Amino acid sequence: MVRISAIHAGEVSPGLVRCSGWVKTHRQSKNVSFIELTDGSSVAGVQLVLDPKLSSYASVAGEISTGASITCEGELRASPGKGQKFEIEVSSLSLIGSADQEQYPLQKKGHSLEFLREHLHLRSRSNTIGAVLRVRSELSFAVHEFFRDRGFLYLHSPIISTSDCEGAGEVFRVTTLPIEDPSFSGKGIDYQQDFFGEKAGLTVSGQLQAEAVALSHTNCYTFGPTFRSENSNTTRHLAEFWMIEPEMAFCALEGNIAVAQDFVQYLAKSVLERCHDDIAFLSKRDWVKYDLEELIRHVGESDYEVLDYGEAIAALEGASRSFEFPVQWGMDLQAEHERYLTEEHVKKPVFVVNYPAAIKAFYMRSRDDEPETVSAMDLLVPRLGELIGGSQREERLDRLTARMEEMGLSLEEYSWYLDLRRYGSVPHSGFGLGFERLLMYFTGMQNIRDVIAFPRYPGHAKG
Amino acid sequence: MVRISAIHAGEVSPGLVRCSGWVKTHRQSKNVSFIELTDGSSVAGVQLVLDPKLSSYASVAGEISTGASITCEGELRASPGKGQKFEIEVSSLSLIGSADQEQYPLQKKGHSLEFLREHLHLRSRSNTIGAVLRVRSELSFAVHEFFRDRGFLYLHSPIISTSDCEGAGEVFRVTTLPIEDPSFSGKGIDYQQDFFGEKAGLTVSGQLQAEAVALSHTNCYTFGPTFRSENSNTTRHLAEFWMIEPEMAFCALEGNIAVAQDFVQYLAKSVLERCHDDIAFLSKRDWVKYDLEELIRHVGESDYEVLDYGEAIAALEGASRSFEFPVQWGMDLQAEHERYLTEEHVKKPVFVVNYPAAIKAFYMRSRDDEPETVSAMDLLVPRLGELIGGSQREERLDRLTARMEEMGLSLEEYSWYLDLRRYGSVPHSGFGLGFERLLMYFTGMQNIRDVIAFPRYPGHAKG
Repeated sequence: MVRISAIHAGEVSPGLVRCSGWVKTHRQSKNVSFIELTDGSSVAGVQLVLDPKLSSYASVAGEISTGASITCEGELRASPGKGQKFEIEVSSLSLIGSADQEQYPLQKKGHSLEFLREHLHLRSRSNTIGAVLRVRSELSFAVHEFFRDRGFLYLHSPIISTSDCEGAGEVFRVTTLPIEDPSFSGKGIDYQQDFFGEKAGLTVSGQLQAEAVALSHTNCYTFGPTFRSENSNTTRHLAEFWMIEPEMAFCALEGNIAVAQDFVQYLAKSVLERCHDDIAFLSKRDWVKYDLEELIRHVGESDYEVLDYGEAIAALEGASRSFEFPVQWGMDLQAEHERYLTEEHVKKPVFVVNYPAAIKAFYMRSRDDEPETVSAMDLLVPRLGELIGGSQREERLDRLTARMEEMGLSLEEYSWYLDLRRYGSVPHSGFGLGFERLLMYFTGMQNIRDVIAFPRYPGHAKG
Repeated sequence: MVRISAIHAGEVSPGLVRCSGWVKTHRQSKNVSFIELTDGSSVAGVQLVLDPKLSSYASVAGEISTGASITCEGELRASPGKGQKFEIEVSSLSLIGSADQEQYPLQKKGHSLEFLREHLHLRSRSNTIGAVLRVRSELSFAVHEFFRDRGFLYLHSPIISTSDCEGAGEVFRVTTLPIEDPSFSGKGIDYQQDFFGEKAGLTVSGQLQAEAVALSHTNCYTFGPTFRSENSNTTRHLAEFWMIEPEMAFCALEGNIAVAQDFVQYLAKSVLERCHDDIAFLSKRDWVKYDLEELIRHVGESDYEVLDYGEAIAALEGASRSFEFPVQWGMDLQAEHERYLTEEHVKKPVFVVNYPAAIKAFYMRSRDDEPETVSAMDLLVPRLGELIGGSQREERLDRLTARMEEMGLSLEEYSWYLDLRRYGSVPHSGFGLGFERLLMYFTGMQNIRDVIAFPRYPGHAKG
C-alpha cells in the first residue's frame, strides 16, 4: 500500500499502485469521474481518475461520498490537470465503508472550528485539524531530537504527585475514596485510607523532579502532560496540556538563555523544513491575518535580545502609547506590556531577566547584587508574548529555606527537595515551554483547543 | 564543559579539559589521591589524579566525599592504570557542594534497591538506577524513531477521560468537588458541578482515541502515561505506567503481528547498540542469573512463531509437566502457561492468536469461521511471558453493537466510538506494549518500581 505523502514527495515510481483512504470529494460526469482521496499523510489528497463504465466503480458510485473509505488500484502517472503533479487512473476500486450523507456530520463544504470541536472523534479528518496534528507529531519528534543530540536524559516525571510545584492550589484531586457512597462525608475524610495514603493530585509541573535528576545526570528534560484545574473558559487555557521542561546542572542563567534560544530556533527551522506543506496550508486560513511563515522564519533566525526587567520597565514608561495596566517597578508584565516590548521596543524575540522576587516562584535564585530580584527569565516573542518561563534555581540551602519560610511553605513537605541542596548541591537552571502555546504560534491557530487532539477544559472530557 | 561519556567514547582530544560532576569515591594517600567523578552521562566515571599538595585541592580535601559536587580542570591523558583508558591529571579543583558523610543517605558501599526506593529523589545517583534511567531515555527515543520512520503520527491521547476502555473499573477518579468540605456528602453528589460536568477519571488506555485518529491518518501511535487503581502490591504493578499503543487502518491481524515483531526487534537491537555499557553493567548485577545480553539478542534476531490459541491449549495439554492452573479450552493463559509455551514449547518469542471471545475485550474482531473466537494476539517472550497484547478491532457496526449489548455496555456512552464504524469504517488493528515491562525485560530489573524514576503504587506518591 502506497502512502499519498510518498506520491507527492516523488518517492513512488509511475506504474501500478494500490492506495487506501477516505473520499474528500467525488465529482461525476458522463465521460470521467474524479475522486480526491486522502489517507491523512499529507494535506493534499491524490486525484483518482475513473471511467464511469468501470464495473467495480459503477456498482458502488452512488455510495462514494465524502468520508467513505475505499481501496483502489491503478496507474500512477503525471497529471495533465492543474493543481496536482500526479494522478491515479483507477483500474479497480472497492468500497470499504460508506458514510451516509444524510447522517455524516462532516460535509465536503468544510465546517467551523467550533462545530468540529463538538465532534472530536471525527475532526482529525478535517484538513485543518489533520494538518495541525501532523505538525504536532513532527514537532514532538524535533523536541526529542534536540535534547538527545545535546546529551539530555529524557525523564518521565510523575503525573500523580503530592507536591504542588507552583503552590498555586490549582490541582486536580486524584482519589479512590468512595466519594459516591451515600455515607461518605467530608467531615470524616481520611486520606490515609486513600490509594496513596495521603492527599494526591495531578502534577502542575515536573520541574522539582527534573531538578533531582539533573543533580545526578547533569542535563535532563521532561515532556509530558501537566494539569491545572483553573476554571478558565478562554482560548488560551487547557486543563490538560503538554509541557517541556529542561533542567541543567552546572548552569547559570546565561546558559539557560542560550539553550532556550537554540531550542526555539531549532523548532522553528524544523517546522518550516519538515512541515512545509502543512504550514503553507495553515498560513492561508481565514484567521491568519499575517505572514505566518515569515513570523516563524524571524523567530528561527533573528538574534534574541536580553533585557533586564528594570530596563523593560523603563522602556514601558518611556513608551509613547498608554497601557491598560499602569506601569511600575514590581508589577508583573501583562500581555500588552510583553507584546510592546517584543513587537515595538526591540522588534524581535527578547528575554526579560531579573524579575522582582515578589512576583516569582519560591525556587528562583536570589541575586546577590540586587537581592530584591531573582535570576528569572521569560522569553517574549512577537504576536504572542511569553513563550518560555525559566530561572536559575536557588541552590543555597539557607537562602532557599529562608525564602520558603517567608512564603509560608512547609519545609517538611519539601524536605526531599531541600535534600538536593544538602548533598552535592550545584548551580542549576531550567525552563518550561507549554507545547500547545508553541503549536498555536507555529500553526497560526487562535484557540488552544484546536492544537491538541482531545482538549480538556471545563465541562469537556468526553471522547 | 566536557561530558564524561564523550571522554569514554574517545571524542575528547587529550589536553586541557574542564569537568563537573559528583564524587563517587575519594582515595587519599601520601603521594597521590584519586577521585572517581561521575556526571551521569555514563555508568563509568572518570578517574581524577591529584597531587595532595595541590593547594586548591588540599584546602577542601576533607570535604570531598561521596556525593559532593566539584568542578576541576586538568590534563586529559591515557591512563597507565588498569580499569580505565583515560584519566585527568587535575591542575585545579573547586568544591561546589559538600555532602556531609554523617547525614548523606547514599554511601559509597552501595545500597539495596529497597533502601533506594525510600530515597527516590537521590536514587538516580546510584549506578543501577542511573543506568536504568539512561536505558529508559534511549529506548523512548528509539520508540519514536521506529514509528516516525514508518509514517506513524504521534498522538497525545488524553489523560483525563470519561471512557473506561477496558471496562475494568480500575479508574482513578479526578475531581475538583470540595470533598474535604465537612458538609460534602456522597448522598448529594452531583457530577454536573464537577470540573468536567460529569464523572471523569485517569485513562487506562489511549486505544479508543487512537482508533479515531487511525481512521483519519491511517497509522498513529500513542506513548504516554496510563493508570490503574488496582490495589496491587506486587513487583509487576504500578498505578502509573507508560504505554505504547500503535493503531493501523487498513490492517488485519497479520499486519499487526508483522509490525509488533519489527517493533520489538528494533528496540532489542537499539538497546544493545546504543546502551551497550549500561546493559553490560546491569547484566552483572547479583539478581541477573542468566545471560541478559544473549536474551535480548535472541529476541532481536529470532523469527517469532505464530500459534493458534487452540494449538497452544493442545500443546499445554500434551506437556509432560503439570500446571498449577488446569488447562482447558476457554481459559485465560496464566503466566506459567505463557512461559511454558515460549520457553519450552517453541523456544522463542511466539504470538498466540485467535483467543476465545469470552476472555477478551469487547472491541476485538469476531472471526467469521470460528465466531466463538476473536482476532486477538498476545506476544509471549522467554523469561517474561506476555509483552504485547493486541487485536484486529471489530469494524462492523452490527457485530460491535451486538457484542456490546451482550456485555451490558452502554451504546450511548460509546456513541462516538460507534461513529467510527458508521462513517468510513475500515479494518484496523493495534496493540499495546507496557513500557516498564519492556524495560524490566531489557535491563534485568526484577521490580517494576525500579524502572521508572518516581514509581506510583499504593501508599506512594511522594517526591
